[in-house]
Amino acid sequence: MQDPHTAVALFGAAGYTGLELVKLLSRHPRVRLACAASDGHAGRPVGELTGQPAGGLAFTSTDEARAIAAGCGVALLAVPPEPARLLAPPLRAAGARVIDLSHAHRADAEAVYGLTSLFAGEIARARLVANPGCYATAVITAAAPLVRHALVAGDLVVSAGSGVTGAGRAADEAMSLGEMYGEVRAYKVLRHQHVPEIEATLARVAGRERAPAPPVILTTHLLPVARGIFATLTARLARPLSSAELTARYREDYADDPTVSIAPTPEEVSLRRVVGTNTCRIGVASDDRGVVVVAAALDNLLKGAAGQAVENLNTMLGLPRTSGLEHLARHA
Amino acid sequence: MQDPHTAVALFGAAGYTGLELVKLLSRHPRVRLACAASDGHAGRPVGELTGQPAGGLAFTSTDEARAIAAGCGVALLAVPPEPARLLAPPLRAAGARVIDLSHAHRADAEAVYGLTSLFAGEIARARLVANPGCYATAVITAAAPLVRHALVAGDLVVSAGSGVTGAGRAADEAMSLGEMYGEVRAYKVLRHQHVPEIEATLARVAGRERAPAPPVILTTHLLPVARGIFATLTARLARPLSSAELTARYREDYADDPTVSIAPTPEEVSLRRVVGTNTCRIGVASDDRGVVVVAAALDNLLKGAAGQAVENLNTMLGLPRTSGLEHLARHA
Amino acid sequence: MQDPHTAVALFGAAGYTGLELVKLLSRHPRVRLACAASDGHAGRPVGELTGQPAGGLAFTSTDEARAIAAGCGVALLAVPPEPARLLAPPLRAAGARVIDLSHAHRADAEAVYGLTSLFAGEIARARLVANPGCYATAVITAAAPLVRHALVAGDLVVSAGSGVTGAGRAADEAMSLGEMYGEVRAYKVLRHQHVPEIEATLARVAGRERAPAPPVILTTHLLPVARGIFATLTARLARPLSSAELTARYREDYADDPTVSIAPTPEEVSLRRVVGTNTCRIGVASDDRGVVVVAAALDNLLKGAAGQAVENLNTMLGLPRTSGLEHLARHA
Amino acid sequence: MQDPHTAVALFGAAGYTGLELVKLLSRHPRVRLACAASDGHAGRPVGELTGQPAGGLAFTSTDEARAIAAGCGVALLAVPPEPARLLAPPLRAAGARVIDLSHAHRADAEAVYGLTSLFAGEIARARLVANPGCYATAVITAAAPLVRHALVAGDLVVSAGSGVTGAGRAADEAMSLGEMYGEVRAYKVLRHQHVPEIEATLARVAGRERAPAPPVILTTHLLPVARGIFATLTARLARPLSSAELTARYREDYADDPTVSIAPTPEEVSLRRVVGTNTCRIGVASDDRGVVVVAAALDNLLKGAAGQAVENLNTMLGLPRTSGLEHLARHA
Repeated sequence: MQDPHTAVALFGAAGYTGLELVKLLSRHPRVRLACAASDGHAGRPVGELTGQPAGGLAFTSTDEARAIAAGCGVALLAVPPEPARLLAPPLRAAGARVIDLSHAHRADAEAVYGLTSLFAGEIARARLVANPGCYATAVITAAAPLVRHALVAGDLVVSAGSGVTGAGRAADEAMSLGEMYGEVRAYKVLRHQHVPEIEATLARVAGRERAPAPPVILTTHLLPVARGIFATLTARLARPLSSAELTARYREDYADDPTVSIAPTPEEVSLRRVVGTNTCRIGVASDDRGVVVVAAALDNLLKGAAGQAVENLNTMLGLPRTSGLEHLARHA
Repeated sequence: MQDPHTAVALFGAAGYTGLELVKLLSRHPRVRLACAASDGHAGRPVGELTGQPAGGLAFTSTDEARAIAAGCGVALLAVPPEPARLLAPPLRAAGARVIDLSHAHRADAEAVYGLTSLFAGEIARARLVANPGCYATAVITAAAPLVRHALVAGDLVVSAGSGVTGAGRAADEAMSLGEMYGEVRAYKVLRHQHVPEIEATLARVAGRERAPAPPVILTTHLLPVARGIFATLTARLARPLSSAELTARYREDYADDPTVSIAPTPEEVSLRRVVGTNTCRIGVASDDRGVVVVAAALDNLLKGAAGQAVENLNTMLGLPRTSGLEHLARHA
Repeated sequence: MQDPHTAVALFGAAGYTGLELVKLLSRHPRVRLACAASDGHAGRPVGELTGQPAGGLAFTSTDEARAIAAGCGVALLAVPPEPARLLAPPLRAAGARVIDLSHAHRADAEAVYGLTSLFAGEIARARLVANPGCYATAVITAAAPLVRHALVAGDLVVSAGSGVTGAGRAADEAMSLGEMYGEVRAYKVLRHQHVPEIEATLARVAGRERAPAPPVILTTHLLPVARGIFATLTARLARPLSSAELTARYREDYADDPTVSIAPTPEEVSLRRVVGTNTCRIGVASDDRGVVVVAAALDNLLKGAAGQAVENLNTMLGLPRTSGLEHLARHA
Repeated sequence: MQDPHTAVALFGAAGYTGLELVKLLSRHPRVRLACAASDGHAGRPVGELTGQPAGGLAFTSTDEARAIAAGCGVALLAVPPEPARLLAPPLRAAGARVIDLSHAHRADAEAVYGLTSLFAGEIARARLVANPGCYATAVITAAAPLVRHALVAGDLVVSAGSGVTGAGRAADEAMSLGEMYGEVRAYKVLRHQHVPEIEATLARVAGRERAPAPPVILTTHLLPVARGIFATLTARLARPLSSAELTARYREDYADDPTVSIAPTPEEVSLRRVVGTNTCRIGVASDDRGVVVVAAALDNLLKGAAGQAVENLNTMLGLPRTSGLEHLARHA
């Protein structure tokens, strides 16, 4: 009898996103986590870092994991861009399909952009998937209905903030609680690396016959929380639509998407309520000047990284999109 | 064919603990949540407050729930002590077994004290279970091995702190983030209501032939976090034991308990790591003066309330103790 | 010999802003705090709430304070708009000049808008000063150089967030730490009451011969901190200016302003660093698309309320603008 | 005419405590900050780090500062113990009196223990002052009246927590907001380095003819706040005293101390209210079992370090003890 589980190899397993993947894949009904690589923690039981049993799995070195991955169906790369660039080719050559969570392959023509809500068909057949950036997931998901229906006139102005885990796990004085307590500050102003992938993806959403996708002006902020992204989008409408009409349009567009939840108003989008879940929560409103505001929130490590990667994994394996994600709920 | 699910009625469903119970019971494999009572939210879909689908369930009034509960196997009371005192008798008369999460029945001779780690046998047969207080769960679980083996000489001094959800959901200026940001303060000094249940339970743990249970001196503090209890116990040892010997004793005593995790040292007990789980994490150490220090942490709304109640429910129904709790993991 | 101190009466002394005023006026070198009114705390020593001696001053009732205020040079109203509307006329009739910190008189033609950075001349002669809203102070101060030099083409999009003390001191479940921990959410989307005063003031800054002031699109957010406002302004430049040119323009415009500090870049504007001070910190940058982003931060209770009121008081009394404010520094 | 200012040299000026000293000494009425040494920031204006003007002062290298210090009346060492051990002898040889804020000289017979509340007389004449540890200041100040009046029978059990700035400014993953958000954990259990200085100092307070000082059992915790120490002391009373009698005793003992504030009850000791001030706030209560609980709170960087050092500096210079500290007040 055939094993109904697909073997999956994980690289970068001890980072914030890596640990989320370990926790998700350990209980996934159709996946077997074959190895969890972390050179800094090799040999240590995975459960010591996740705080929960992981079937006795221990971290392996990257080299060991490469050998194991050769026999796996899929390899997930939760490592920085440089190692991701080096790991992907040999893993693919060895037969594994690759999901890269770094930005190494997001502008790569060979890779499929892994925003499952938009590109599930291509992802299902992909050999290499570039998992989107966390800000990109929030902004594209929040903007897609406006862009798809050619509703934006002029710029799309985005102000977004992230918890400090968005910067990855690292020893950095600037991220210490002593420095971040009560802090808010902007970073990478007018030069955030997610803007190109947002603009390119929105251009695909806009399509050929419609108005071109709007220029995206993104300001990112560091917020004094551990997890979560909150994005506020502002634009002029190309034609007048009421808040109710806009909300109805969003509800329709995302009717079949189990990972997007449309709130009655932007005020009902709560960062706290999405942390710990794989949901992107969105609310939209307009005024009589023709201004539209969209609020969107998601967990940067789940819907913005590890959860999205599992959606892609499921899609690649022909499984229901939220397999292994249904148990997620806010309990904290 | 018989329905494999037991119908359960929940009262006080919109409080912090009530909402945790809704989320847990909605996905419990052997339980059907027959009603979720909240007079303040009657008619409103439960999912609006939990932020997740609950099978279309809506809150009912207490009166409606009482009628429904008559046909249920178990009723859970997540209400304040006064309503709990009024609700329990008619529910029991109507045939339901009752788990009361308030302190109304904790000193009641008719009720079984619902600390599943210690009293599973009695709980299995109980008609009325008094779910322990959150501090009591932390302190008793942390102290039981010391008391069972008559290791404490003199007082058991406990300093413990709780997140603000421990005080329940309420409009209270003192609990506002404006007042609590960066705040720590002691409350109910030398007069916390959980001390009698802690002392009475430790006396049972001590047993007849052994040294009497130690006096418990508890100081509780409000901490600037949403969830969790951290307790530090200090005592003089009745006879010398090393940190390693003490840790081994704790590991042995809790070897079969799926809800207690013994850390190698007290320093490895992390509040953050237990929030969102049904685990009580404990570490113990001693020095050459014969002093013992035990650190314990748990999620006040799960292991300290709703999770403990589900353990009791499972035990009463003859189910595995952690049914419906296995999916809990720190994702936040 | 004449008393060199001006007697000042304070109404609404026990609110967040009121207490800041008590602390500031108690040590002001040229002011004598004649009374501090709070009906809820009448008779109680002021020091119990401020945590520091206030010369033995006790809170009085509003009625007592009205009698005392008749002999005072200035009355400060740190009360809600309704009481402010009722208190101002009799106080003025009794001879006191009035500074109203509520929004009651901000659209009142008789009142001078109390943004000292812009309108010191009028304030010096005013009998009634309407102290600006905290968001308005941040946005107008950050936008004034752009508007004065006619640099904005199109909308001025503002995304701003405030700590919970911005909502005033009140028992409100939504503001509890249990609800606000890790939370970010938008509020009053497309309908914030400060927009009219911002637009009206920027129109005055724009002046007659120049381009009209830009439409202001403001989205306000609640942030999980106690104090502070952080505002991010985004616009298209009417003509190209580099970040360095813009920063130089801001430095020049605010060269003589002791309460505004221009950062080298927007990234160096830190909310944490302005809390506890009377400084508005601002940074500006542009890109080669002609987009300008301005970041601004201030303490909502000091520069955004009580500190601004003391600036106005000093200006009305012919004192140096920062008398009684020089000691403020970040020590927390 | 003689300069009424004493020149002071500061080493370690860019750490958390060093920056507090820069801010305090810059506005001290009788002190001139002659140099502020930080090898990591040499040449950079001090105001860039403090966020406020410091008379144009720039950081110098340690070597430059050593030369300048030779002409100074007092040198303050806000550096780690090793550099402090190396710097003190040459500075003293060059004629400067030294206040060492590290623990290098706390057990040194040549140094005076700089707890101004207890040892002002010796400090006035000292050439070398060892500024106390932050926990030591809290615990000794809170315990002194009990020990002085021989009121403790048996152990003094202390549970104390500190904000993360207590660990100094450093790049440390464990201190990142991502790790510390919602976290509480114990550290250095049964082996904290402040216990010897606490026990030695309490032995001096106990005096010869009285009962010996009690053994101190200290458990320290890391709290998810930036600043402050909260300590809870528990003991058995040697003879019965009511809460009111104990509070009266504390009030009497600290009647002349401008830096200690006795609260009516332990519940009224608030961490938040002391942060930003040079006050140690203390409350005491007992019960009919003869148990006494003392709660104490202070700002670890002010009363627990920099403020205490200024008290010592003033005492050494014959100035009023709180010169340069009166302006401190909670504004945050």
